[in-house]
Amino acid sequence: MADFIKKVGNELWFEENDRDSLKVSYKIKDILYSAKSKYQEVQIVDSVDFGKMLLIDGVVQTTEKDGFIYNEMIAHVPLSMHKNPKKVLIIGGGDLGAAFEATKYPVERIDVVEIDEEVVKASKEYLKEVSKDLKDERVNILFEDGAKFVKNKKGEYDVIIVDSSDPIGPAEVLFGEEFYKDIYEALKEDGIMACQSESPLLYPEVFKRTYKRLKNIFPIVKVSIATVPTYPAGFWSFTIGSKKYSEINKVYDKDTLYVTKEIIESSFNLPRFIENMLK
Amino acid sequence: MADFIKKVGNELWFEENDRDSLKVSYKIKDILYSAKSKYQEVQIVDSVDFGKMLLIDGVVQTTEKDGFIYNEMIAHVPLSMHKNPKKVLIIGGGDLGAAFEATKYPVERIDVVEIDEEVVKASKEYLKEVSKDLKDERVNILFEDGAKFVKNKKGEYDVIIVDSSDPIGPAEVLFGEEFYKDIYEALKEDGIMACQSESPLLYPEVFKRTYKRLKNIFPIVKVSIATVPTYPAGFWSFTIGSKKYSEINKVYDKDTLYVTKEIIESSFNLPRFIENMLK
Repeated sequence: MADFIKKVGNELWFEENDRDSLKVSYKIKDILYSAKSKYQEVQIVDSVDFGKMLLIDGVVQTTEKDGFIYNEMIAHVPLSMHKNPKKVLIIGGGDLGAAFEATKYPVERIDVVEIDEEVVKASKEYLKEVSKDLKDERVNILFEDGAKFVKNKKGEYDVIIVDSSDPIGPAEVLFGEEFYKDIYEALKEDGIMACQSESPLLYPEVFKRTYKRLKNIFPIVKVSIATVPTYPAGFWSFTIGSKKYSEINKVYDKDTLYVTKEIIESSFNLPRFIENMLK
Repeated sequence: MADFIKKVGNELWFEENDRDSLKVSYKIKDILYSAKSKYQEVQIVDSVDFGKMLLIDGVVQTTEKDGFIYNEMIAHVPLSMHKNPKKVLIIGGGDLGAAFEATKYPVERIDVVEIDEEVVKASKEYLKEVSKDLKDERVNILFEDGAKFVKNKKGEYDVIIVDSSDPIGPAEVLFGEEFYKDIYEALKEDGIMACQSESPLLYPEVFKRTYKRLKNIFPIVKVSIATVPTYPAGFWSFTIGSKKYSEINKVYDKDTLYVTKEIIESSFNLPRFIENMLK
């Protein structure tokens, strides 16, 4: 048993250890899946409060109960801003939740480039509440290094979504300036990208750095905020880099649980302390 | 030492035990104050990630780092909706953060009715980052039972803010239908009230019940959502009962860290899953 899952009496608890000074413990009913891949440890556990959870190296990635918030935001914000999104690239996103949201748009192709096959396997088999048992012909899953994949692409994609884990381990490169430049090149001339940019409260440096890096590359940069209960400190940020579009065009929100046009527009209204961080 | 504060090796940890299936642990540097009042256990601890924290019976009430979010929301939302707020009542709110925000409005009198003198004493002495060492002549602090206090008032207040702790222990009565009726009576004919109505995600029953109860009494009821990182599950709700006003009039936001007019307006745009709860 991984050392972040403990038996206390006859109860099972998963403890997420954030930054050695903040820990969140979830009572779990069962460990549904556990594997050590080439890159990381992957688990699916069934928790009392958030249902099934995908863990990578002991950090919650998505859950049955609140995963839709993150996945809807990271997919709908850039897709709804683009006037005619046809070709979409998702880097990371192995739980397939963002890909499922992207299929709600009249797109032609969605490439999901996930480095770790184990994440997709586990999510498809044991986390159908998030992966939705996705069987859409437009979705192509490639098990490759996203940073390398995007290097050779020129003007190919309308929307690129960087659905990465935290900037430690395999995902670190996905927060680098070179990677963002490659994304810029991989986008068409009216292309748009979105990335998760961590918690402004707990990781202000990552948040500010991501904004600054995108500002150096894209003419239009916007920050969008949402609450993701199972991410530390609640507030979560998404940073958008856009070559042309700055407003919402159309939100395909017929079956959403979080986003509406108003919610996306509101998400750009930043609390003053977050706005101050970007000055 | 209270049993929710533990020594682990040579580190001090405070563990908040939410609903026996979710725990949040904060590494703390020091216990600044600890007392057992007639009603509850009151502590001020100094944490690594959220600075000083006020604990009541082992539950985080407010912190140096994120307390402004809750206090600005619960005060500015109703005060900014009222056209001419002169007389304000705050029930609970012993940390004085909401009272401090209310002093930013051109009000004449702010009555703070807090049942537990110990909370005010601890906050004034050891939590000046929240209480702001409040010395405004318009603020009158009364150590009384808020539910009883409001019973004898008829058409007296413009704005009533119910800044209670969770609906267990002394604060339970502050979530009751009778209490809300008394508040209605205590308000002037264009009066408005705001209360904290818990997390829609973790306590959907409290959230829905509060909305329903206010709907039975007030002609205008609105729900406002904010993220409070140190409250369980991030999302926090405020429910507004209003006799006349339904829109924002003026936000006194010169020195705020969270609210702006746009933030308050956005806070009424509910995520779809929360909107669905109120149907």
